[in-house]
Amino acid sequence: IQDKAWDKLEALLSKMPAIEVAEALQALEPRKALRVLSVFKMEAQASVFVDLPAKKQEELFNLLDKRRFSKIFQEMPSDKRADFYQSLTATEQAALMPFLSKAIRENVLELSAYPHDTAGGIMNTDFATIRLKMTVSQALEKVRRDAPSGKMLYYIYVVDEQKHLVGFVTLKRLVLAEPTQNVSEILHTEYIHSMITDDREEVARLIEKYDLVAIPILNEYDQLVGIVSHDDAMDVLRKEQSEDLQKIMGIRVADEEAGYLETPVMRHFSKRIVWLVALAAFGIISGLVLHQYEGLLNKLVVLAVYMPMLADTGGNAGSQSSTVVIQALSVGEVKFSHWFKVMLKEASISTMLAICLGVLAFAKVAFLSSATELPSELSLSYVAFVIAVAISLQVISSSIIGALLPLTVKRLGGDPAVVASPAITTIVDITGLMIYFGLASWLLL
Amino acid sequence: IQDKAWDKLEALLSKMPAIEVAEALQALEPRKALRVLSVFKMEAQASVFVDLPAKKQEELFNLLDKRRFSKIFQEMPSDKRADFYQSLTATEQAALMPFLSKAIRENVLELSAYPHDTAGGIMNTDFATIRLKMTVSQALEKVRRDAPSGKMLYYIYVVDEQKHLVGFVTLKRLVLAEPTQNVSEILHTEYIHSMITDDREEVARLIEKYDLVAIPILNEYDQLVGIVSHDDAMDVLRKEQSEDLQKIMGIRVADEEAGYLETPVMRHFSKRIVWLVALAAFGIISGLVLHQYEGLLNKLVVLAVYMPMLADTGGNAGSQSSTVVIQALSVGEVKFSHWFKVMLKEASISTMLAICLGVLAFAKVAFLSSATELPSELSLSYVAFVIAVAISLQVISSSIIGALLPLTVKRLGGDPAVVASPAITTIVDITGLMIYFGLASWLLL
Repeated sequence: IQDKAWDKLEALLSKMPAIEVAEALQALEPRKALRVLSVFKMEAQASVFVDLPAKKQEELFNLLDKRRFSKIFQEMPSDKRADFYQSLTATEQAALMPFLSKAIRENVLELSAYPHDTAGGIMNTDFATIRLKMTVSQALEKVRRDAPSGKMLYYIYVVDEQKHLVGFVTLKRLVLAEPTQNVSEILHTEYIHSMITDDREEVARLIEKYDLVAIPILNEYDQLVGIVSHDDAMDVLRKEQSEDLQKIMGIRVADEEAGYLETPVMRHFSKRIVWLVALAAFGIISGLVLHQYEGLLNKLVVLAVYMPMLADTGGNAGSQSSTVVIQALSVGEVKFSHWFKVMLKEASISTMLAICLGVLAFAKVAFLSSATELPSELSLSYVAFVIAVAISLQVISSSIIGALLPLTVKRLGGDPAVVASPAITTIVDITGLMIYFGLASWLLL
Repeated sequence: IQDKAWDKLEALLSKMPAIEVAEALQALEPRKALRVLSVFKMEAQASVFVDLPAKKQEELFNLLDKRRFSKIFQEMPSDKRADFYQSLTATEQAALMPFLSKAIRENVLELSAYPHDTAGGIMNTDFATIRLKMTVSQALEKVRRDAPSGKMLYYIYVVDEQKHLVGFVTLKRLVLAEPTQNVSEILHTEYIHSMITDDREEVARLIEKYDLVAIPILNEYDQLVGIVSHDDAMDVLRKEQSEDLQKIMGIRVADEEAGYLETPVMRHFSKRIVWLVALAAFGIISGLVLHQYEGLLNKLVVLAVYMPMLADTGGNAGSQSSTVVIQALSVGEVKFSHWFKVMLKEASISTMLAICLGVLAFAKVAFLSSATELPSELSLSYVAFVIAVAISLQVISSSIIGALLPLTVKRLGGDPAVVASPAITTIVDITGLMIYFGLASWLLL
């Protein structure tokens, strides 16, 4: 690229939001990306760096001399900085350390100390504090003084000398108040907070429930040690929901997730094989059941023809009921104690479904098997009737199993998402075959 | 409840966040709930009212005289107010109207005019504006003057005389700036925005992508007409994801969603029956395929015994690949143009899966069917081998179909979520049976 084009590109990029610059840089070769990056102010360089994918960050880190990188590093949001630090090898960490100020060094080490699935693991320390005895104008003065660009100032936290959280004021309220008023007059003393060891999903749900911009995080001494902001909460919720769907489909969820195309084949394989093998192994039971009825199948091949219909319909009905129950569980609307209510509800819903699907099954058998040879003692409509009844019973039992199984797993402390679609399908296959052949050997033999 | 207890309850409630008060009120009989509500300031009453479920809001609305209700109504956030207004009957709307100020009346009518799945339908008008030529202190003065409690002041929008959006400043930057500076000196002129007719999910995704607290909404003349805030975006994303999961499981998604237990049986039924019947009807094809092979089944009943294994394994493998592709599509990582890459990737992954599952299938057949009588010209290990090969081919074809079908549906302008689990299962059942019996009649007859 010529110098002129470069100037143009730079002028263009400097007006774009950080995430878009990051997206543009991804397409560039690392040295070129670095050159583009260097036209920005340090603060903007940090914002762009944070928005790059991990692989690109690593490339740039390796190219940059550590003194220069430390300048970008210091401007990164504290949580992203700690995450990046943790992604480095011990040697790389040691190479970077000498160029960091003591405060940054301590901050990085502190934030790296918490497990990443806790509030401590996703919090940042970019918040501002004031004291209770300040006036509004003193408070604003303090905020002006120690609020460099990166800080979240939507809420300003009020702490005592021991850093205990006393309450908060919003910047808005501070601005709207009279300068001579006391902070204590405009203080909110009732605040929502999380503890540093809380699960990160709980923290995200609190932010969602109370519509917060950020939530203060306290340590075991009730000292304010960090905040989690709404955009991090959104990331957590987004990640959680996509993981849930994967679990539901029998895909093992890993900690670090790259995109579909980036993830190597071997990794995809290892995430999928576990459940597939487990379910296939479990399927031995349906093989055993069928094995019992080989004689019956031999006599009435027509029964084999409708086995897929039985399996599909049962699996679909069970998947539906398990999905709605898992969703109701995850928003906390349904609890284990509701199991009887849920069962009654599913029994009513599925009876209606069963009637429709039974009639359809009867029509299907009568239509498709009209040419099939049957033993002389059986009429086609009688066989169709028995199959339709079996399908109906299968729909009802699958719906009830699909609803009660997640409740039970939840009750036992497990994750209800794992007994969704594929697991339910495999389980109701077994009950379905037992119903089908049980009924057939009773009524058709 | 005695008066003394009431006082206590009220004292307790007044310290709680609105959403918790709303949760507490739900348990109370409407008249009692009203009495509790009346101890709050009008502003707090509005916050609590907004957090009540629709049914409870209706009850309270019917109990309250319209003059008193209009006071609560005026304090509600503008978007929630318009939503509630739309939920009223024409008679109720007419009864409320005379008690509203002209400004509120116009605001409600304006916000009610947009389809609820667009930016206009979820936006609110609780934002503050300043002019470009103001100084920082004049701007702060204006914000102080016309910012009653409900306004979002995180961003303050800068507009010209025709209400065209020129840029924005953050309250933080305004507070940190020198009072004598000009607004134009601290202005951000590059802003992310949405148009009023944009899909609400796109708006929510912009807020998520750019980590915004709110996004300005422009009309066709580029005038600033509203904002959508981060908590509303979170609601949209949450709703979207739960709807996606329902779609994936073949549950029809309705506009207004009540909880699982609240939703009447009939409504659950109507949401589930459509796909179940459609899939069952589509299943006629697998019936037709099987019908073709009745002779073969008659001769080799052992084939029937392993049909469920074939169907389950194929369905599970197909569900997995469709899930990961649907997720990659929804975050925009994969596009239709990647189809060849996706196909190659799934071919490699599924070949590895196929080898494992094929070996497992061979072992299963050899173990379970050791006692089965076979025609004298066939050995058990040969039959097991053929079944294992069929299962392997089924895993590969299901994975590829599961991955390519959502891509195709997306390309055709449809929603890829509808061709997930149940649909894929039904489709790969058909291809699976064709592979299975095709291979069997070629190698075993």
